[in-house]
Amino acid sequence: MSEFRLITALNRVLAQASPEVIVGIGDDAAVLREGSGSIVWTIDAQVEGVHFRREWLSWADVGYRSMMAAASDLAAMGAMPTGALSALTVSDDVSEAMILEVSEGQREAAGLLGCPVIGGNVSRGGTFSVTMTVLGRAAKPLLRSNARPGDLVQVAGRLGDAALGLTHLMGGSRAGAGIAAWRRPHAQIEAGLRAHASATAAIDVSDGLGQDVEHLARASGVRVVLVEAQLLKCAPRLDPSDALALALWGGEDYALVVSAPSSIEGFEVIGTVTEGNGVLVKHVDGCEVEAASLGRGYDHGLRERA
Amino acid sequence: MSEFRLITALNRVLAQASPEVIVGIGDDAAVLREGSGSIVWTIDAQVEGVHFRREWLSWADVGYRSMMAAASDLAAMGAMPTGALSALTVSDDVSEAMILEVSEGQREAAGLLGCPVIGGNVSRGGTFSVTMTVLGRAAKPLLRSNARPGDLVQVAGRLGDAALGLTHLMGGSRAGAGIAAWRRPHAQIEAGLRAHASATAAIDVSDGLGQDVEHLARASGVRVVLVEAQLLKCAPRLDPSDALALALWGGEDYALVVSAPSSIEGFEVIGTVTEGNGVLVKHVDGCEVEAASLGRGYDHGLRERA
Repeated sequence: MSEFRLITALNRVLAQASPEVIVGIGDDAAVLREGSGSIVWTIDAQVEGVHFRREWLSWADVGYRSMMAAASDLAAMGAMPTGALSALTVSDDVSEAMILEVSEGQREAAGLLGCPVIGGNVSRGGTFSVTMTVLGRAAKPLLRSNARPGDLVQVAGRLGDAALGLTHLMGGSRAGAGIAAWRRPHAQIEAGLRAHASATAAIDVSDGLGQDVEHLARASGVRVVLVEAQLLKCAPRLDPSDALALALWGGEDYALVVSAPSSIEGFEVIGTVTEGNGVLVKHVDGCEVEAASLGRGYDHGLRERA
Repeated sequence: MSEFRLITALNRVLAQASPEVIVGIGDDAAVLREGSGSIVWTIDAQVEGVHFRREWLSWADVGYRSMMAAASDLAAMGAMPTGALSALTVSDDVSEAMILEVSEGQREAAGLLGCPVIGGNVSRGGTFSVTMTVLGRAAKPLLRSNARPGDLVQVAGRLGDAALGLTHLMGGSRAGAGIAAWRRPHAQIEAGLRAHASATAAIDVSDGLGQDVEHLARASGVRVVLVEAQLLKCAPRLDPSDALALALWGGEDYALVVSAPSSIEGFEVIGTVTEGNGVLVKHVDGCEVEAASLGRGYDHGLRERA
């Protein structure tokens, strides 16, 4: 069963009507009614051996990444984060000093986001992991589902740098372009708040632009046409086909993609929304191809981790 | 480093002033300001091999337990739960059918609590675990820290039954008193809401009454004197010293202990708050002994798991 089908099946089991719930399973975060606004809420896990190996980054980086990765879901809802809880599962080979270093990294990210870690849980377990849940507020949360033909598709943040860094790390190198981007991603909270007023839909880039934009296109019932030349402006300086593959399928960028009728400050326009379905890439020569047909090979080395 | 000292050290690293935060690390749940009331928020993990073994219960029980254990923290704050997120870490030997069975159990518990599961996360990982975060509301959350001399100490729910069930399961038996209580605990939400108006302090019994009441006594700067004869009314029907040891140190009861100036409907009075510190048990002959001196031997077989 694919992740998408599993989530659909889980939703079928878990969905329960409640006057409190505005958005349930299936968007970047859940949304609960609260007074005249809403509470936006997400949870995300970083598991050793799956999302990272300890020789790739410091324990503080693990904490920092865990906080930013979770907060990124709130950026994608146009929400302002207010607090976080941290649940650690600690294997026998992780010392208290390492745990405290993880929390130093969480604190650093929390300080940048204005979103303190206010509680959590510590448990023993066979595999080390950090699960963070982040809560925030939004007057009107941005969903994945309202992109309209004619909208511009725009991105805040870089695409493919983190994946490039990860390829270096997986190859045994500890220095190289993109490693810093992978170790210390930045949740695009300010960009999300800026986009909030005019954006019709939004998603954060965790799995890779191609896949995440596919989710947005499916949820909105539209087609997205990405323009290669525009995309490459946000991607690593490499041979264009490598750069495009990394930008499309690398993932873990925690960039923010939105659709909106006009361009938004701080965002780079990378494509347009049209009638139809699926995600296409328009080459410099004008020809359009299915995104999925482009360099998906990159996928395999990286994606099998998550 | 003990769990208590680790949490103190984590709090030192993570504490950050925020106008949004009413209660941070150290109580049963965190509390955020929200309009005229507050949001009460907790996270809890059930890890295979630490909190359960798969031969001890069904996958639906795992889901049910995970939901009730997390919601129990909200009962201890006098809060009404409104929603939950579920983060699963799935090892290779856990099938999608098992995952869906876990979510069936979560749904059943969620239905009883009026607290739907509205989102979550699924990740691969070396060890299977279910981490649940639950959100709720309370006009004025009950803390651990306001018990006053003269208050009555009262409990809603049974003490030691779950631990008795667990001893059966650990001994290889699949039938016996207490097994159902261990597999399907009940978060004392209604009792917490009933206690909310008059209780001065509250805590849920997860680690064992003795230890949890110690937390309450320390946070409030008081002594608690538990009356053996009263305690045994809530404990398994066994030889009194076995029953007392299970009730004091067994844990995983998810009973609710509160202090209040007068008795509350649905609670059994088990002791009193006095000046001083620590937790004592008053025997039938009138003599008072340190709770910690009583049958802590039970502790070792069970406590080393968590």
